[in-house]
Amino acid sequence: MNMTLSGKLTEDKVMLDRQAIGELYDTSFYGHPRADSLELSLIESAYLMYTEKITVKSAGKELDFKQFFLKASSIAKNFELSYVVYKDLRERGYYLQPSVTGFRVYPRGGHPGKTPAEFFVFVTSERIPLLLSALRKHLDTVENLKKRLVLAIVDEESDITYYEVKKTILSGSCELRLDNSLSVASLLEDRVMVWDSDVSGLLHNKGFFGKPMDEGHLQMSLVESCYLLSKGILGIEQRNHEALDTAEFLRIASDIENDFTIKYKVYEKLRDSGLVPKTGFKFGTHFRVYKDIEDISSLPHSDYLIHAVTHDHVFSLQQLSRAVRLANSVRKEMIYAAVDSRIDFLIIGRMRL
Amino acid sequence: MNMTLSGKLTEDKVMLDRQAIGELYDTSFYGHPRADSLELSLIESAYLMYTEKITVKSAGKELDFKQFFLKASSIAKNFELSYVVYKDLRERGYYLQPSVTGFRVYPRGGHPGKTPAEFFVFVTSERIPLLLSALRKHLDTVENLKKRLVLAIVDEESDITYYEVKKTILSGSCELRLDNSLSVASLLEDRVMVWDSDVSGLLHNKGFFGKPMDEGHLQMSLVESCYLLSKGILGIEQRNHEALDTAEFLRIASDIENDFTIKYKVYEKLRDSGLVPKTGFKFGTHFRVYKDIEDISSLPHSDYLIHAVTHDHVFSLQQLSRAVRLANSVRKEMIYAAVDSRIDFLIIGRMRL
Repeated sequence: MNMTLSGKLTEDKVMLDRQAIGELYDTSFYGHPRADSLELSLIESAYLMYTEKITVKSAGKELDFKQFFLKASSIAKNFELSYVVYKDLRERGYYLQPSVTGFRVYPRGGHPGKTPAEFFVFVTSERIPLLLSALRKHLDTVENLKKRLVLAIVDEESDITYYEVKKTILSGSCELRLDNSLSVASLLEDRVMVWDSDVSGLLHNKGFFGKPMDEGHLQMSLVESCYLLSKGILGIEQRNHEALDTAEFLRIASDIENDFTIKYKVYEKLRDSGLVPKTGFKFGTHFRVYKDIEDISSLPHSDYLIHAVTHDHVFSLQQLSRAVRLANSVRKEMIYAAVDSRIDFLIIGRMRL
Repeated sequence: MNMTLSGKLTEDKVMLDRQAIGELYDTSFYGHPRADSLELSLIESAYLMYTEKITVKSAGKELDFKQFFLKASSIAKNFELSYVVYKDLRERGYYLQPSVTGFRVYPRGGHPGKTPAEFFVFVTSERIPLLLSALRKHLDTVENLKKRLVLAIVDEESDITYYEVKKTILSGSCELRLDNSLSVASLLEDRVMVWDSDVSGLLHNKGFFGKPMDEGHLQMSLVESCYLLSKGILGIEQRNHEALDTAEFLRIASDIENDFTIKYKVYEKLRDSGLVPKTGFKFGTHFRVYKDIEDISSLPHSDYLIHAVTHDHVFSLQQLSRAVRLANSVRKEMIYAAVDSRIDFLIIGRMRL
């Protein structure tokens, strides 16, 4: 029978003597071996107290689990969040070690000294807003190390949802082949109407633009119209027949729709990459996006849901959760397009560990 | 062969002579019959021009469809939205008439003079934020007339989504049977921990509260804890062992969570009505709610997703769309709880006409 090891709480570490290296590190990779001691983090210590592998003294007095947990949660910010994630991952059979923003997790079957770590797990609470800038910084760090970034979001009832975040490059097979100056359309309240029935047919059937209002007329969204205007494919005039150039159209559209500028940049980038973005309204995102469309009359399911955000965007984790859940429930990938001088596409997907 | 009827545009109406009553109203219920003329709205007129039943003159000159449409869309706010909804409903075989906020729609097989109208359809664009107060006013009006309220939301590509909104009363079969002053729990960062293993079991298994962190300890959310504290079932103290009363707990919780007050009011109302609300984080709402739980170890699927909103809430239709879509995709009903001096539960569901 194993003897319970005894450790000492010192600031935010628990120190055990040399013997613990063999019993806790060499077999199960708990803690950091030092010259002649084993150093455990607060989280590792709480877990080892719960599993009755160690006892911990502070100022000569032995602490019970409750006393240790209360102390630890007043020393370390969000201790209880990290603890439930640590416990969950350990109990799923992963070896992991504390790191600056959460945990370094080894692949199944791997462990320190044998394999490099595979994931960096960033732990947060559903209540803490997540800055896009912080997320991108984590992602850069983690991808530079050739690891994968996992968000562990703990909800108010301590249930954990794991998301993987990664950058992606998107491209599709829909090349635009339309003549220039096809026709002149009218800007109405907040959409554009193409009156010419042949042009309506061409734009819809060959370009996958707009929605036929009836057999002769096509209604198009502001982003679609702006794209065709900027490419010289379509002219657009106001109701009073004044022609609009791209700059004027952009200005008017931005008055109608707050986030028109970033939305349009993403639309343009996607179209230029051979993808067909259509409105994602029914899914609560800017776009649903098709990689390949053969024939508009038998539209396949779309592949991505894409939402444009500015570089200073702050995610509400509740909304992020809803977006990813909805995308996955209709078998699409949820992608955020971070718009800056360049556009980064970030896929966020639920992860089953 | 029918002769095309000729009408005259006068302000925001098109007037046709007596003969039109027989040809357009008596058979198909277009317009309002007057003493010796038929009065058509702009929308009805555009539709009848499109179907080549009428021609329209303005100042002696005949207008083509494009000219009439442009004129109408500069006279009537959001003309093009209403037009696509009118056309869609007509083509689905409904008789309908313009009303103040949209259309009065007769049930299938019914028509003016034969049956009362069944629905009031309120037309709006995905871009126009929807005030909860306006929605409730519409709902009161429509429900007083014993009709059903339908929202027709037109997206940027002129696709229409129909939602039905109605008030509902919720109740469930889960009565709370727990003794008072069971134990004292600790408020940590943003959740509460029950340390006593028997009490943890009782609260979780009999009351469906919290989530076991491990075999002996239960983590509870702030709303759950507040409810148990206010009922005298549980004591709660801070990490420094200072006891909290309900008012203090409410104050601290409101600092942690902005919308704690309304969220808690809804939680309390639901629990008092025999329902069990648990966090709806994975669905992006405040709560997922169970009508009946027999045994916590075999939790059924939850019935409702409920989100608490203040009486001055403004819906983004994109977010509403996402919430309803997600709820329906997991076979739950999406309910908004409007919190005022009383709480109104509004079910919003996708409607297939």
